[in-house]
Amino acid sequence: MAARTVKLAVIPGDGIGPEVVAEGLKVLSAVAPQHDLAFDTTTYELGAKRWHATGETLPDTVEEELRGHDAIFLGAVGDPSVPSGVLERGLLLRLRFDFSHYVNLRPVRLYPGVTCPLADAAPEDVDMLVVREGTEGPYAGMGGVLRQGTPGEIATQDSVNTRFGVERVVRYAFEKAAVRPRRKLTLVHKDNVLTFAGELWQRVVREVGADYPQVSVDYCHVDAATMFFVTQPRRFDVVVTDNLFGDIITDLGAAVAGGIGLAASGNINPENAFPSMFEPVHGSAPDIAGQSKADPTATVLSAAIMLDHLGLGAAARQVENAVAGDLQARAKDGGERSTARIGDDLARRVAEQG
Amino acid sequence: MAARTVKLAVIPGDGIGPEVVAEGLKVLSAVAPQHDLAFDTTTYELGAKRWHATGETLPDTVEEELRGHDAIFLGAVGDPSVPSGVLERGLLLRLRFDFSHYVNLRPVRLYPGVTCPLADAAPEDVDMLVVREGTEGPYAGMGGVLRQGTPGEIATQDSVNTRFGVERVVRYAFEKAAVRPRRKLTLVHKDNVLTFAGELWQRVVREVGADYPQVSVDYCHVDAATMFFVTQPRRFDVVVTDNLFGDIITDLGAAVAGGIGLAASGNINPENAFPSMFEPVHGSAPDIAGQSKADPTATVLSAAIMLDHLGLGAAARQVENAVAGDLQARAKDGGERSTARIGDDLARRVAEQG
Ligand SMILES: CC(C)[C@H](C(=O)O)[C@@H](O)C(=O)O
Ligand SMILES: CC(C)[C@H](C(=O)O)[C@@H](O)C(=O)O
Repeated sequence: MAARTVKLAVIPGDGIGPEVVAEGLKVLSAVAPQHDLAFDTTTYELGAKRWHATGETLPDTVEEELRGHDAIFLGAVGDPSVPSGVLERGLLLRLRFDFSHYVNLRPVRLYPGVTCPLADAAPEDVDMLVVREGTEGPYAGMGGVLRQGTPGEIATQDSVNTRFGVERVVRYAFEKAAVRPRRKLTLVHKDNVLTFAGELWQRVVREVGADYPQVSVDYCHVDAATMFFVTQPRRFDVVVTDNLFGDIITDLGAAVAGGIGLAASGNINPENAFPSMFEPVHGSAPDIAGQSKADPTATVLSAAIMLDHLGLGAAARQVENAVAGDLQARAKDGGERSTARIGDDLARRVAEQG
Repeated sequence: MAARTVKLAVIPGDGIGPEVVAEGLKVLSAVAPQHDLAFDTTTYELGAKRWHATGETLPDTVEEELRGHDAIFLGAVGDPSVPSGVLERGLLLRLRFDFSHYVNLRPVRLYPGVTCPLADAAPEDVDMLVVREGTEGPYAGMGGVLRQGTPGEIATQDSVNTRFGVERVVRYAFEKAAVRPRRKLTLVHKDNVLTFAGELWQRVVREVGADYPQVSVDYCHVDAATMFFVTQPRRFDVVVTDNLFGDIITDLGAAVAGGIGLAASGNINPENAFPSMFEPVHGSAPDIAGQSKADPTATVLSAAIMLDHLGLGAAARQVENAVAGDLQARAKDGGERSTARIGDDLARRVAEQG
């Protein structure tokens, strides 16, 4: 029997979600025995199919069960047949909010061998860690509509930023910056326009930063940041930002780091008061679902973030090394492989490091 | 005497603002006689210096004078010595809001010969027109702070979207799309999260779009849009979007189209109830101010947008052709030129077309 059993809730979801999750689990199975680990997985059918069948996005009883797990591994949710926002707000964001995933951790890293859309970028230029706030900001869902359907209609959307919420994520970002070689933290916001929220973020960065004198602090407006992501990505080491700006710049970051097929994320509750949730940044990609065309690498790298979060750093490095090796091999032969074949190759590379 | 005199208010502003505005005016002077035009300019000293001297950003009397002009030509405002937001909200945004500049028009176009940071993009791939809403959204300045400075602090920032405000800018965007070769309009928003505002924008695009059956309509989440800007810029023809998303994607667009030194904009009140305002997308760049290093091209292209708005399309084309010629010449010799020298060369190219 393994020395440690991880209770893992699996939400394959919609579209390519089940395909990529299967490969993520394959790689986890390959790494487990080498670390005397076992994954005890329970699969939850949530997403478009369930919503169509029952109208449910996340029944309370299911959420209660999820809470009893060590981590959640999610593929992707969403389908054009479901009105925009229903599954996003009812399932994905509900889990992020209810389970206090205040750190949405998104590394942006260009692996050697990966084709970058930028003409001049080398792997050493693109190596950042975006710490996106995950539980407030414009994602709070506050606001409303007055006089809907009339010429006098008004729709508001409110960004909510609390000292509590900003401070905890900023502190996490400083902790991460303090142990990286460049020890630099950049706040990305728009404080010259969003003055109420911006002043709070700036003040918290200043105050928390006093505890980290070894970390250099920078600020960049979000509009300029998107420009620098493509012209001077080296400018960034750790980036801390609000929920919406983080959403935007990490998709751009994914593109810069070689595409959405490689972008991983963790929705983390650092105190482990709730299970954290790990998912690729990409969506359910209904256009290529069921064709074995999806790249499972983003999901596999999300599994590595999960291993790190579970304190299994050595296993995480093994998975990352397997990915790095696979990406370099692709650069050489470049043949098309199916989703399952990439998963097999990654699992083999993991096993070979044992 | 010229057949038509344009009353032009000039706000050189801070940093490189006065340097680039001088070249813009030089080019306007070169184009004017060929179209039997005269520019009657009045310069307004607004920006950091005035704020430091008097505490004023935009005195009511000055705003009243500006209102009496046919157009406003602005360099850039802002300086690190002024708290973030003071000049932005007190001068730039105040003019945009008070003068109902509901169309913030930002072409994103890669001119032949210009170095693009994308490895694979050719000029025909990057040719879009971003129509950014300019008078509401998160820029409304609404929101506030409760319990400031305490652990219970809350800062809110409210996006306000009205049927009136959304409809007028969407209609303008459809008008533009209808006369472009590709006749495509893409709404950029985040309707799966910002559901109140997103639903309004979607519904208005649907309803107004019924009047433009020849225009094909697409939708793209703002996060995905930033990705497609660098991987598939061809996807976009006319883009319509809210004030904040427009701010973000047009800086990215500027980078993709060869840099912020080339990005032009018009803050337009299409009904001419108020003077429209034309300015480069870039800021005051205090780091290079006073060194004759700034590229005045963005300002010159903003002057071309102004000429178009004033109904002087032939003059606008002449200025654009001069810029296109200059950019191709740069690609060949590539020597560094001072701000004034670039302005001279552009003025000469304009005159040669006479
Ligand atoms: C699906 C959507 C709600 C989600 C978000 O906006 O956070 C996605 O874009 C992401 O980045 O994980
Ligand atoms: C200076 C700032 C207020 C402004 C904006 O956010 O609109 C600028 O970034 C722009 O895009 O014109």
